[in-house]
Amino acid sequence: MGKVLWHTMLSLDGFIAGPDDDMGWAFGVDGGPGQTADEVVRSTGALLVGRRTQDVEDRLQPGFYGGAFRGPFFVLRHDPPAQPPVVKGVTGQFLDMGIEQAVTLAKKAADGANVVILGANVARQCLAAGLLNEIIVHIAPVLVGEGVRLFESAGGAPIKLEAVSSHAEGETTVLRYAVRQTPEERR
Amino acid sequence: MGKVLWHTMLSLDGFIAGPDDDMGWAFGVDGGPGQTADEVVRSTGALLVGRRTQDVEDRLQPGFYGGAFRGPFFVLRHDPPAQPPVVKGVTGQFLDMGIEQAVTLAKKAADGANVVILGANVARQCLAAGLLNEIIVHIAPVLVGEGVRLFESAGGAPIKLEAVSSHAEGETTVLRYAVRQTPEERR
Repeated sequence: MGKVLWHTMLSLDGFIAGPDDDMGWAFGVDGGPGQTADEVVRSTGALLVGRRTQDVEDRLQPGFYGGAFRGPFFVLRHDPPAQPPVVKGVTGQFLDMGIEQAVTLAKKAADGANVVILGANVARQCLAAGLLNEIIVHIAPVLVGEGVRLFESAGGAPIKLEAVSSHAEGETTVLRYAVRQTPEERR
Repeated sequence: MGKVLWHTMLSLDGFIAGPDDDMGWAFGVDGGPGQTADEVVRSTGALLVGRRTQDVEDRLQPGFYGGAFRGPFFVLRHDPPAQPPVVKGVTGQFLDMGIEQAVTLAKKAADGANVVILGANVARQCLAAGLLNEIIVHIAPVLVGEGVRLFESAGGAPIKLEAVSSHAEGETTVLRYAVRQTPEERR
């Protein structure tokens, strides 16, 4: 059975994007030969992405994983337009439903391979619902100072993760964590 | 000539403390044999700390570096009490002055060894003034969700750091960065 992974670039100070989803701070960062991204692309059967991520990937990027992932993708959006979402010529599907149903659908499409989550909002919903198995972050040597944070949960208890591995790729450090599924395990 | 280092534990989501300076999230984290802390203590001649850090280290902790650092320390505070600051029986000195003067004093006390900054507020002032040479963070496998952030700078430009090294220590990953000194180098 495939896993559900959250995969993201992260600034040292905990931002996944600057103000207005700006990713300019990430462009100059040397991510090395990109073996983690290659491995993720190879092991992934479907993507579940947020609305902003889809927009950014289509307008400002060469597509998911630099165009290397051209498999099924789903965009969680509660006011979907009539036309299906497109990222650089690849057509996906809007899902107007709860996170559990959306993950179930994405897993079915992944057919035993992994589902990758792109987008903090969708990832937080997966985390809260106990649907996320792993977090992979590429820490960039940048202090961004403001913008979209990896995680924000005012009033919530801290969530303990299980450190799986860390290694350098270019200027970044790739950290992998397993997510414990029950509230008891997370303390 | 010694360096000025900012040394801190950091949650994966970019917090150095929870709400009200709570460090409960860090207590269960296995930091391994602590070779980085040992090395920092050996190479450090003086500490420059914030007011909250001094209070926490004295009241809630066994002292700086678990009591291993008993050298000179300075507390930057603009309304210093008449009595000098004390951390677990070691007496320091309050400094009611600007950051440049304070760093100069701490460097003098360090006598060629490093000065370690403890406390986000003091560290940010050093960073802004071009006085910080290195950042060492121990990333803990925890999502804290709210509290005191490593860095916050609304409206500021992102600051590019130079990745020096990364390695695992217990459940944490230790990342070292060199700070570029001029605005041009930081882009």
